[in-house]
Amino acid sequence: MKIRIIAVGKDKDTWLSEALNEYFKRLKPFCKIEMIRIPDISVKHTGSSKIVIEKECAAIRKQICKEDFCILLDENGESKDSQGFSELLTDLSTKKRIVFIIGGVFGTDARLKEEADICLSLSRLTFTHRVARLILVEQIYRAMMIKSGRAYHI
Amino acid sequence: MKIRIIAVGKDKDTWLSEALNEYFKRLKPFCKIEMIRIPDISVKHTGSSKIVIEKECAAIRKQICKEDFCILLDENGESKDSQGFSELLTDLSTKKRIVFIIGGVFGTDARLKEEADICLSLSRLTFTHRVARLILVEQIYRAMMIKSGRAYHI
Repeated sequence: MKIRIIAVGKDKDTWLSEALNEYFKRLKPFCKIEMIRIPDISVKHTGSSKIVIEKECAAIRKQICKEDFCILLDENGESKDSQGFSELLTDLSTKKRIVFIIGGVFGTDARLKEEADICLSLSRLTFTHRVARLILVEQIYRAMMIKSGRAYHI
Repeated sequence: MKIRIIAVGKDKDTWLSEALNEYFKRLKPFCKIEMIRIPDISVKHTGSSKIVIEKECAAIRKQICKEDFCILLDENGESKDSQGFSELLTDLSTKKRIVFIIGGVFGTDARLKEEADICLSLSRLTFTHRVARLILVEQIYRAMMIKSGRAYHI
């Protein structure tokens, strides 16, 4: 299984990079996973959040291929439990690549939401887009453990 | 506002301790917050998850006073969005202390669930009890930002 996560902005905090590295290391035997960090656009420079979203979404699109199955993380998306999320990944294992998109501070545009194959919500709670990275990667790891019948998810 | 988080087991990962310290530092001007880490019991030594739960819950109880308002994190608990969570904390600000309980690997017993004033679910997704610490602390910080009308939650 090939997974690409597209996120906006650097990790910023050392602890986040360390946590992501830890899960990426653990995921190595189960899938080929990478995280593409798109540069975030400053609202101070552009003057409007609309332009920030436009520019960031354009950069995100460049990292997606036609054959990719795109899952956009969005607070209004469908919610799943960990079992359901694992089943989703299993169902998608025949796809060439699964792409998860985590927007920036201002989220993504309506077009990207339409273009995505699924919009998924991690929780009713709002997380920063950086904490969302960790939650997503931990859930991917959990999904792999559930799929392979290992004990981590208990 | 006084907040005590009771969690089972050490942080284990350095990145988690760093992340928690970061949020605790940021929370300092807004509330008095502490995390009590109860030693986790090994199922290998006790031979049964039931005994683990019993012993851990007994240790948790020792950290709770009669006047505390207890919120138990439980996957079957009530779910809230960040706005709702912030309103809950605001409503509880007259209480002597708010206590959040995060159980261990096997969760908590039915008695502790009954004794708690509220059972709260962070998400339909299951998180490890360690990742739950970070999510909770981040949500408490977010709640304080919402309450004080600051920009973090946008």
